[in-house]
Amino acid sequence: MDNSGQGKTVAELAELLESVFVGDGQVVIQLVADLESAGPGSVAFVETVKALEEVHTCAASCLISPDAEAARQSLPDVPAFIVTAQPKLAFAKVAAILHPPKKREPFVHQSAVIAQTADIDLTVFIGPHVSIGEGTRVEAGTRIEAGVVIGDNVRIGRDCVLHPGVTLYDDITIGDRVVLHAGVVIGADGFGYVRDDMGYHKFPQRGTVVIEDDVELGAHTCVDRAALGQTRIGRGTKLDNLVHVGHNCDIGERVVIAAQTGISGSVTIEDDVVIGGQVGFGDHIRVMSGAVIGSKAGVLPGKIVRPGVWWGIPIQPLDEYKRLNAHLARVPEMREEIKELKRQLEELKKNRID
Amino acid sequence: MDNSGQGKTVAELAELLESVFVGDGQVVIQLVADLESAGPGSVAFVETVKALEEVHTCAASCLISPDAEAARQSLPDVPAFIVTAQPKLAFAKVAAILHPPKKREPFVHQSAVIAQTADIDLTVFIGPHVSIGEGTRVEAGTRIEAGVVIGDNVRIGRDCVLHPGVTLYDDITIGDRVVLHAGVVIGADGFGYVRDDMGYHKFPQRGTVVIEDDVELGAHTCVDRAALGQTRIGRGTKLDNLVHVGHNCDIGERVVIAAQTGISGSVTIEDDVVIGGQVGFGDHIRVMSGAVIGSKAGVLPGKIVRPGVWWGIPIQPLDEYKRLNAHLARVPEMREEIKELKRQLEELKKNRID
Amino acid sequence: MDNSGQGKTVAELAELLESVFVGDGQVVIQLVADLESAGPGSVAFVETVKALEEVHTCAASCLISPDAEAARQSLPDVPAFIVTAQPKLAFAKVAAILHPPKKREPFVHQSAVIAQTADIDLTVFIGPHVSIGEGTRVEAGTRIEAGVVIGDNVRIGRDCVLHPGVTLYDDITIGDRVVLHAGVVIGADGFGYVRDDMGYHKFPQRGTVVIEDDVELGAHTCVDRAALGQTRIGRGTKLDNLVHVGHNCDIGERVVIAAQTGISGSVTIEDDVVIGGQVGFGDHIRVMSGAVIGSKAGVLPGKIVRPGVWWGIPIQPLDEYKRLNAHLARVPEMREEIKELKRQLEELKKNRID
Repeated sequence: MDNSGQGKTVAELAELLESVFVGDGQVVIQLVADLESAGPGSVAFVETVKALEEVHTCAASCLISPDAEAARQSLPDVPAFIVTAQPKLAFAKVAAILHPPKKREPFVHQSAVIAQTADIDLTVFIGPHVSIGEGTRVEAGTRIEAGVVIGDNVRIGRDCVLHPGVTLYDDITIGDRVVLHAGVVIGADGFGYVRDDMGYHKFPQRGTVVIEDDVELGAHTCVDRAALGQTRIGRGTKLDNLVHVGHNCDIGERVVIAAQTGISGSVTIEDDVVIGGQVGFGDHIRVMSGAVIGSKAGVLPGKIVRPGVWWGIPIQPLDEYKRLNAHLARVPEMREEIKELKRQLEELKKNRID
Repeated sequence: MDNSGQGKTVAELAELLESVFVGDGQVVIQLVADLESAGPGSVAFVETVKALEEVHTCAASCLISPDAEAARQSLPDVPAFIVTAQPKLAFAKVAAILHPPKKREPFVHQSAVIAQTADIDLTVFIGPHVSIGEGTRVEAGTRIEAGVVIGDNVRIGRDCVLHPGVTLYDDITIGDRVVLHAGVVIGADGFGYVRDDMGYHKFPQRGTVVIEDDVELGAHTCVDRAALGQTRIGRGTKLDNLVHVGHNCDIGERVVIAAQTGISGSVTIEDDVVIGGQVGFGDHIRVMSGAVIGSKAGVLPGKIVRPGVWWGIPIQPLDEYKRLNAHLARVPEMREEIKELKRQLEELKKNRID
Repeated sequence: MDNSGQGKTVAELAELLESVFVGDGQVVIQLVADLESAGPGSVAFVETVKALEEVHTCAASCLISPDAEAARQSLPDVPAFIVTAQPKLAFAKVAAILHPPKKREPFVHQSAVIAQTADIDLTVFIGPHVSIGEGTRVEAGTRIEAGVVIGDNVRIGRDCVLHPGVTLYDDITIGDRVVLHAGVVIGADGFGYVRDDMGYHKFPQRGTVVIEDDVELGAHTCVDRAALGQTRIGRGTKLDNLVHVGHNCDIGERVVIAAQTGISGSVTIEDDVVIGGQVGFGDHIRVMSGAVIGSKAGVLPGKIVRPGVWWGIPIQPLDEYKRLNAHLARVPEMREEIKELKRQLEELKKNRID
């Protein structure tokens, strides 16, 4: 992974970040590092002044910090500080500057099998044992790693990365700067059957999948093709590993979905929704912008999930979920109280009769 | 995916469906479509008369409907109607007629590596970068897409489709018309170890897997080989994406299992069982015919699941699950009631003493 | 899977196991089998004397049993018995002796693409359509099956087995005798982003993954690379299929994790922990040695899980979980009791007034 360049001075980095620095602006930074392992030539970050108080030594050449004075007092030996309200964000941007993604020169490995009618830009990298089908188009700067299989009539935009073993079925559309990790499968048939006495007949799975710009899909994530129409993953959306997206789902822009979540058919997830890991969605659900759904939650078919934080199986507002659980934890005590009430009532009645 | 043929007239389709039509039987139908996007030359469907009432325009050339009169009144511009009690089923059958699965001519790509002792029917399609092991047999009409790896002594029946990147370990048996989506793994070692002071010793995983006719497995679904004996997926059974089937499971015929469900070792699932997504099964469970298990349910090891609808962790009959949850939702109110009872009792006691 | 050798006599097996035998030590054993299907030439086992009582016939040539006398009385026709306190463990060891893993002769398939600077031991087996990157080293006796993709600067130890379709990203370290089942992905980017107004920026994912000796990973299991630093799977640890291990996790030695469990970033799991299937872990959790976590459990971010058996969402000690659930099952009855108390109290009050 050492695809680092020649490094940048602290002054150059601060300028690129549109931030200020204090200390020696001419120190050269080669790499990003975490606080503990940072050494000379590296830049680290602390997110808060409070976190800064817990750091007593740091061998980094530069620290990104929310407060210059506090940083300087805690760590007088660090030669330079970049100051910004969002240190983690700045650190991510510095990492992108110092460590650009692995670059592949334009190349087509001789073992790749590319259909005559495929239209591959001359700047594309194609690794060993790749297959590309008829009528497929791949645009400039895209990198297709070993063992990727791409069907017929697929369109892949610019500057994408398809990691090893990705499979794209026929008729899929992929935007620009999309990253598909190893084993991603896009366009397998949706899970739709119609039953009669003989067993199951396949409901037609003839639609397509559209993956918009700047999407990243984790290893082994599967996005099924639509029955009719399309399955869509919106611009800038990020899915973790082993996520399942069913047929005809419409997932908006800048949505985040953690690992192993499963989404049944025809679910709509609006822009900017955040979803934890191992969540399950029944079909025909609509999740509105502003909703956050906690890990392991379950959403019943047909539900509308409004803005707010949701939790549990089936989902409830997090506050209610916590309140109800606190009440439920008192049930053993309640049983004792009921027993005691009974006893006292009996006593009262007995005394009365006496 | 446009592998459509020359189309059929409405009269021809009605005859193939053993249904009646009203209107113009000579209209030619080329493709299936959903109601909203249907245009000339397409056939759509409505499942119920009620659904029909909500449709106000339809540009399809033919509509499959449960009632000719109602359909005609709602949509007088549609030139023809096919009438049947099960429109969705008829639609699925029409789709299969109009859009037969992608056909591959018999072919062996020169990059495929096929063992000398493998026995491959002359009508088989074998894509690029496929490997086939010693003693393996593949029967007529089967299609093996790019990057599939098949071990030694595997037997694959007629007219199967193995999508890209499928892995079959040694000694697996696959029936006829089986569809394995991208990344399916069949025959990896079951998860069985014996512990001693030194750590874990592998319990032998020397059995096999049998996949019967007309099974379809979703992308990245894994079916482990038996420890001893066999793991079986019965005829006509359909599994969604990312399902895990442990060693020595016996899954019956026409079983449906939704995405991300996990089944531990030695579980028996009888014919016609329906299982939702993200369900978990402990080992040595028996699920009887007639059982339906809701999504996200958990079944404890060794259980027998009787016919009926089951829900929850651990599973309960759906009715009981709902009833108990309704009661639990009243616990906060119950706490108030207990408090009030205490207050009243205290008052009563006090009055008594006075 | 018939990679059996010439067989061993009962006397030889008993000596290798450091156990005793009774009966005919010269009987030759060729294979392991389960009790029901065992025939001449095979060895089976019973784990307990109680289990032995339920066996009435056995055609095995040798039975491994915890008690020679009881075994002989139950099954007088079996010619030989090996006696040991841990029959299942002995059976696993016998299986390893009689059925050594499939052996591949040193070989490099001509379709494999191996970088000039890769350093591959002469005893390695490399199957068809494999890719190996620059600076990667593979040590003696390792077997790399068809379609495996290995990145740059990877180090793979001795006697490993990489099943078909495994992907190792750049800079990964794999110990000795590691088994990676089909579709395992090691080193994909961790799921870390920083949000600003524009959307998500990738947090740097520049760390690595270390898989120690004797680890086995199930089909399609994914282990993400660290953001900074390393993700580690300790010596002798076994993961089932479709497990997700997030960035910077530190998983100890001899840990067992069942299928479809998901582990968020920066989780520490200490040695000898046992984890069921479909468990979910939030980030920054520490699971201490001696903990056992039941299937489908959920652990909240930041928790420390102490030794003991844990269950539920969120996890509780199994005893408490059971006790609370028993109490909760009584809630309907409690509602009736409260109603009755109210009635009696009312009556009491009414009588008093009268």
